[in-house]
Amino acid sequence: MRNFETIQQDVQVNFHYGVHFTQGLFQLENTLFKDTLRPFLPQNPARFLCIIDQSVSSAHPNLTEDIQAYANHYADSLSLAASPIIVPGGEQSKNEHEHITAIIDAVNQYRIDRHSYIVAIGGGAAVDMIGYAAAIAHRGVRVVRVPTTVLGQNDAAVGVKNAVNAYDKKNFLGTFVPPYAVLNDFDFLETLENRDWIAGVSEAVKVALLKDAAFFDYIEDHALDLVSRDMDAMGWVIYRCAQLHLEHIATSGDPFEFGSSRPLDFGHWAAHKLEQLTDYDLRHGEAVAIGIALDTIYSHLTGRLSEGAMNRVLDTFQALGFQLYVPELEATNAESIKHVYAGLDEFREHLGGVLTIMLLEGIGQGVEVHEIDQAVMDEAITKLRLMEQAHHTLPVAN
Amino acid sequence: MRNFETIQQDVQVNFHYGVHFTQGLFQLENTLFKDTLRPFLPQNPARFLCIIDQSVSSAHPNLTEDIQAYANHYADSLSLAASPIIVPGGEQSKNEHEHITAIIDAVNQYRIDRHSYIVAIGGGAAVDMIGYAAAIAHRGVRVVRVPTTVLGQNDAAVGVKNAVNAYDKKNFLGTFVPPYAVLNDFDFLETLENRDWIAGVSEAVKVALLKDAAFFDYIEDHALDLVSRDMDAMGWVIYRCAQLHLEHIATSGDPFEFGSSRPLDFGHWAAHKLEQLTDYDLRHGEAVAIGIALDTIYSHLTGRLSEGAMNRVLDTFQALGFQLYVPELEATNAESIKHVYAGLDEFREHLGGVLTIMLLEGIGQGVEVHEIDQAVMDEAITKLRLMEQAHHTLPVAN
Repeated sequence: MRNFETIQQDVQVNFHYGVHFTQGLFQLENTLFKDTLRPFLPQNPARFLCIIDQSVSSAHPNLTEDIQAYANHYADSLSLAASPIIVPGGEQSKNEHEHITAIIDAVNQYRIDRHSYIVAIGGGAAVDMIGYAAAIAHRGVRVVRVPTTVLGQNDAAVGVKNAVNAYDKKNFLGTFVPPYAVLNDFDFLETLENRDWIAGVSEAVKVALLKDAAFFDYIEDHALDLVSRDMDAMGWVIYRCAQLHLEHIATSGDPFEFGSSRPLDFGHWAAHKLEQLTDYDLRHGEAVAIGIALDTIYSHLTGRLSEGAMNRVLDTFQALGFQLYVPELEATNAESIKHVYAGLDEFREHLGGVLTIMLLEGIGQGVEVHEIDQAVMDEAITKLRLMEQAHHTLPVAN
Repeated sequence: MRNFETIQQDVQVNFHYGVHFTQGLFQLENTLFKDTLRPFLPQNPARFLCIIDQSVSSAHPNLTEDIQAYANHYADSLSLAASPIIVPGGEQSKNEHEHITAIIDAVNQYRIDRHSYIVAIGGGAAVDMIGYAAAIAHRGVRVVRVPTTVLGQNDAAVGVKNAVNAYDKKNFLGTFVPPYAVLNDFDFLETLENRDWIAGVSEAVKVALLKDAAFFDYIEDHALDLVSRDMDAMGWVIYRCAQLHLEHIATSGDPFEFGSSRPLDFGHWAAHKLEQLTDYDLRHGEAVAIGIALDTIYSHLTGRLSEGAMNRVLDTFQALGFQLYVPELEATNAESIKHVYAGLDEFREHLGGVLTIMLLEGIGQGVEVHEIDQAVMDEAITKLRLMEQAHHTLPVAN
């Protein structure tokens, strides 16, 4: 039979979304929420269903009522499809798949269609899980993310990914699907525990170290303001971190990560593993701080980064109150190999067999490498332990 | 605190894939498969895992061995990760979610990463399900689709969607994720039952009616060749149908269907519902033929389409051997409303509350409408019944 020429198919997809910054999202005089959820048909209100992180609904017992009152006040524009669904916060929401099922059941039961909205209110983990459930229902229901933590607002909830865990592996199931919009309400941060307030700053330190020395200077200079919960300082840290993150996604040329490079995953090979090794006792941001500290020391020990720059990074983390060593860093398997190094293998596997690790050549200056010398990394881990011992057991001179 | 300006995020994603046409895909002298699965690292072979539709492996008992022999022959370029996984063919694979789980288990067990390949060999339904499983594992493993049916090769497996059924609703769960490549091997069509051979032609009639009158002329002129299983005629029908389909996706401006328009879903509101009402006894292509016939008659009855054009469509379907009436078209609920009309509601819901139905203004000339007059549609259904009664009970004059 005749020969048919190959059809070369090019598909270009343009996504657009706004990342907004506000306070008092559901106060009646704040029109951002109503203005964001545009009705699909001008004559009908926009239908939406809220999924709320348990820890947020506990900290804000009036939230459900406030949302109902807001929807009633703007009844011409908004229509609540049902009462909110409450899901656990933290990694629990990503480990237990019944919450995905509950959300998809609700999409079916309340006839949430591709032009209705799922509003995901919670920390980075809950928003990740909710976004995944919404992404697979009807091949993608619109999602408005309302992240309520520092980490969610500056990093986890502003990008194009969502996921849940499976087989004890972080983010084993997920999709690349940008949100419809992101609404960052700083008021939610007021009720965060100190741990969560600070933990999210590590992602800001990360992008600053990779991309913006002036931003690192800002964090370094404002470490004490951040520790004392100054909202103006935190506002800028969140805004600039989100902006650098979004800029990277838009301009990297590979927003859906078809290649092997993951430049924003600085410090994350160890961080992901440490979260798992500590049974998620470590917050993601806390684990990231340790991972960054480790790879910063390694960058110095391998001659890439000056000692002065290394010390600025470590001092800043310590000034912010991060603990930079956990015993799980040195736990070993039967062959005396540190468990944390499995994180390198998992990273390699996730990236398609080629290891790409980001290191530092200077403040604001990342560099990719494809090999890690474990003897030097051992040394870096030891240095972290000694440093933390000195920091916590010696009297601090003022 | 200070006001932070909204960050407007634009993300552009470019997908590229080739749709290839071949015969003897796994014959050693055919290098297409080997050339398609490019290794991620030049020094390593490309790893792949095959998922095979039960009906294909039954019809081609040597397929697994042929693939193994092919991988052995090209061991420098290819590496089989494991024995193939067999999944049911037809809608069963989309209705039973344990097959998704089996595939994702295999991704974990055999360490299939984002740069390995899942090769989906089967009919449109199996490929849809396999594509969905691969799309959510690791946020998307590369998928090479090897559709083995007419419908798969000309329509279901060339586009950017995948899905499974849930809550008795077709395609309730799914994603928009283009394949890495599509390999259409005409040899697989030789073993199709007559029903499946012809069923897929209805999608070609559909795109011809919407977009290409000359293509409709071709199908009309070659109806008997197609019925007598002429592979040259079928080859062109598949090629041109796939081409028009792909052209539409690339140039519609809305490949991921963010809007409400679904121009390629001509005849599909009734088709989807009839598949379900007949417990999937009707093949998708058979249901589509009925749906197109129905909306073609409706187009004529509402003054949009000439009687002559209508008759050409109906005659062509009959010449191809399609049955254009099933009693489920007239089954009613307790309120004497035909069950099939629920298909209009489900369509409206899926499209976000606005009904958009494609009708015909001429051969090769579609037109969108937003309202359906059920009394006229009742008339169209009656006409289909009477026509089929006449066709099947009266002696055919030659």
